[in-house]
Amino acid sequence: MRKKLQLTVLLLFGILGYAKTQNKVNVPIPTQAQLTWQNAELVAVFHYDLHVFDGGKYNQQKNRITPIVDYNIFNPKNLDTDQWIKAAKDAGCKIAILTATHETGFALYQSDVNPYSLKAVKWRYGKGDIVKDFVESCHKNGVKPGIYIGIRWNSFFGVFDFIVNGDNQFAENRQQYYNRMCEGMVEELMSRYGVLAIVWFDGGAHGPELDGPDVLRVFEKHQPNCIFYHNSQRADIRWGGSESGTVPYPCWGTYPFPYLHSTNQEVVLANNFQLLKEGDPNGKYYMPAMSDAPLRGYNGRHEWFWEPGDEEHILPVENLMNMYYKSVGHNSTLILGLTPNPDGLLPEPDVERLKEFGKEIKHRFSTPIASTSGTGKEIKLSLFKNQRINHVIVQEDIVKGERVREFVLEGKTKDGWQTIFEGSCIGHKFIHQFEDMEVDAVRLQILESKGEVQIKNFDVFNVN
Amino acid sequence: MRKKLQLTVLLLFGILGYAKTQNKVNVPIPTQAQLTWQNAELVAVFHYDLHVFDGGKYNQQKNRITPIVDYNIFNPKNLDTDQWIKAAKDAGCKIAILTATHETGFALYQSDVNPYSLKAVKWRYGKGDIVKDFVESCHKNGVKPGIYIGIRWNSFFGVFDFIVNGDNQFAENRQQYYNRMCEGMVEELMSRYGVLAIVWFDGGAHGPELDGPDVLRVFEKHQPNCIFYHNSQRADIRWGGSESGTVPYPCWGTYPFPYLHSTNQEVVLANNFQLLKEGDPNGKYYMPAMSDAPLRGYNGRHEWFWEPGDEEHILPVENLMNMYYKSVGHNSTLILGLTPNPDGLLPEPDVERLKEFGKEIKHRFSTPIASTSGTGKEIKLSLFKNQRINHVIVQEDIVKGERVREFVLEGKTKDGWQTIFEGSCIGHKFIHQFEDMEVDAVRLQILESKGEVQIKNFDVFNVN
Repeated sequence: MRKKLQLTVLLLFGILGYAKTQNKVNVPIPTQAQLTWQNAELVAVFHYDLHVFDGGKYNQQKNRITPIVDYNIFNPKNLDTDQWIKAAKDAGCKIAILTATHETGFALYQSDVNPYSLKAVKWRYGKGDIVKDFVESCHKNGVKPGIYIGIRWNSFFGVFDFIVNGDNQFAENRQQYYNRMCEGMVEELMSRYGVLAIVWFDGGAHGPELDGPDVLRVFEKHQPNCIFYHNSQRADIRWGGSESGTVPYPCWGTYPFPYLHSTNQEVVLANNFQLLKEGDPNGKYYMPAMSDAPLRGYNGRHEWFWEPGDEEHILPVENLMNMYYKSVGHNSTLILGLTPNPDGLLPEPDVERLKEFGKEIKHRFSTPIASTSGTGKEIKLSLFKNQRINHVIVQEDIVKGERVREFVLEGKTKDGWQTIFEGSCIGHKFIHQFEDMEVDAVRLQILESKGEVQIKNFDVFNVN
Repeated sequence: MRKKLQLTVLLLFGILGYAKTQNKVNVPIPTQAQLTWQNAELVAVFHYDLHVFDGGKYNQQKNRITPIVDYNIFNPKNLDTDQWIKAAKDAGCKIAILTATHETGFALYQSDVNPYSLKAVKWRYGKGDIVKDFVESCHKNGVKPGIYIGIRWNSFFGVFDFIVNGDNQFAENRQQYYNRMCEGMVEELMSRYGVLAIVWFDGGAHGPELDGPDVLRVFEKHQPNCIFYHNSQRADIRWGGSESGTVPYPCWGTYPFPYLHSTNQEVVLANNFQLLKEGDPNGKYYMPAMSDAPLRGYNGRHEWFWEPGDEEHILPVENLMNMYYKSVGHNSTLILGLTPNPDGLLPEPDVERLKEFGKEIKHRFSTPIASTSGTGKEIKLSLFKNQRINHVIVQEDIVKGERVREFVLEGKTKDGWQTIFEGSCIGHKFIHQFEDMEVDAVRLQILESKGEVQIKNFDVFNVN
């Protein structure tokens, strides 16, 4: 009995001590949804909308103010979301997102609040539900589903940059109606398809304080463990400031505001989105950066939507790997834009490229020469013998937040310890590629940190 | 052989002579569709739209600029168009018209161009087609179907008085889209449901010359023998200038313009629509007047749409008979507005009233004391003995146009011929009710006419 009491007291002190340490180390920590998101590292976002079927070039400015003439062009006869998800999984994507609605306003599911949906078309006798198919294919393949909702633009209903066209009472009434319609769609999408990894509002959502729909309230009711991206009240991740699939180094996972949308625009826009790109190590909010890019973004093209004859613009593996280093390797999530064709399939060249990309990532990083983990100011990794290395991966245990502020990586060559890299941010993952070096040990020295640093992984590689 | 030749020559001269007479008598003559329309005399127009289901009072000004919050309120569980049509038929309606779309823009059929249609609702799993049901019920009951299309207002899409809301390029693009949508709906409605008696554009349609849709071209392609009502190019009938179910006397079936919509507004609006009400005996265009009124138009109410607690506003039979005299009896067509309830049925009190109305018309006019027909300046009808009369009905054979310009009706009492009525227009039908008279003959003297007058019917009645 006494022993039990002692144990309880010890445990209690332990918990209090831990909590105290946590309190002392005043760094923002991620939610479970943010952890899942960052652990995914690679995410696919599937863009599919009426314009895929119009046979023409995608002209965003024009499309935003021009309704599609005939929505029955939507007719993906061989639609196979399993094929889509398998292709994304081949690349290594652990989360896949679908544009339930994009800028036409057309909804890829059976909406009861937006008539401009799959109920309206002849395809599958008006009974098609691509969101449902998509989510099922995700589950079948062990990929987590996410939903992308476009409410900022709606060429059919007449919405431009959140605002219903017109400046009279009619427009105001239609704005109220549209806001309710948006809340209704979010209600449907949040409640019908199970747990989601992320809900992505395209270009953000206006909250009620800006006369927009109250989508956050609906989201929170149904998806307590999901990334919310984003409105003027909340953002769980941030845009990385470009659509290049990369962020600079350092790119901190923290940010000074709880949102990035519609307010603080001067700060956000300064220096070509510098704050979005780099984050702020002293930011009070955990909000890691995404690095988004379309797979068809090569050689002067940058296309989120399928167009005929665009296969030559699929990014080569080397470019994708470069993105990978500068996104996943920079503490960010790489989001690859994929777009199925009018037949309903991801085109074979895209599928092949994703497979090659996934293979190359595995080839480079599935077999470290050596690995370790640990806490403290210095973590040393012995290779036992001289070996050629050219990559290091370091990961903080971000459950406890980003704590590292300054570090140096060194390799022990025959001439002694030599600097490989002097850095600042590690966060979820830091990948460093360098010229071949012969070393028999590497070490990570933490020069500055917020509280005790916990390194979850410290791997070295010799990539051919 | 010689006899045959003689006969042929005689026939030939006969035809030439007839044609010559026709040419000489320069009066507009009706098309087959207009004949069918005027012979119908009684027409029902069924109003059914989302507002029937909203539980509130119908406020047209507000409704025009306020989209219905939830279109799934449309749920007429016991919809039975047979019941509707039987009720209309009981009143004597030979044509029944349905609002395929009204001012919300919601379409009561399976449109492939307007997503805001029965495809969008849960009712009948999105497969309902009330236009189809309606037309089938018409055929089953020997009633001719007509379709009413509202494109002037669309609270959902944002159309006010033909114009898409807003004044920028976006609005202009949506206007073009809307025009094509309207043409598409007309194409569907004109081609899917067989021969129609009338197509009624609510408040008219703008033609291409006013940047509106080209609905006339589509109509003409599919419905060569149908009343077109109406746009700025054509009108086969005209509004009678009020929604009172009556027109004044005289009400000529001819009109000075080929249309009544959007142009000549000054002339049309003058003296509270005097021209629409009276027509013009010298008008070059055959365009008879309609007299429209809702059945629920009694005691300060005037409601085309079903509302709760409105049964007390169903017009009494005496009022309906008064309308009948002042519409059918004034060379016009009486159009009664009927509106089924949210359950999908015409309410029993309305059904009963229609039955009573039909009975009363039959009671009064199915058994004339005497009838005749004929041509010439004087048509005399002997009753063989002194009899009490109080109604006369006269009909021109309007196949040859309205020819009578001035006439006098007289009854031969024991004191000799006495004037019953001095009039001008007869047209399709002239009904005159008067104080009981004892006569043994009546005569119609044509004082002025365009060419030879042909009286199709000349009936006298003694109505108790």
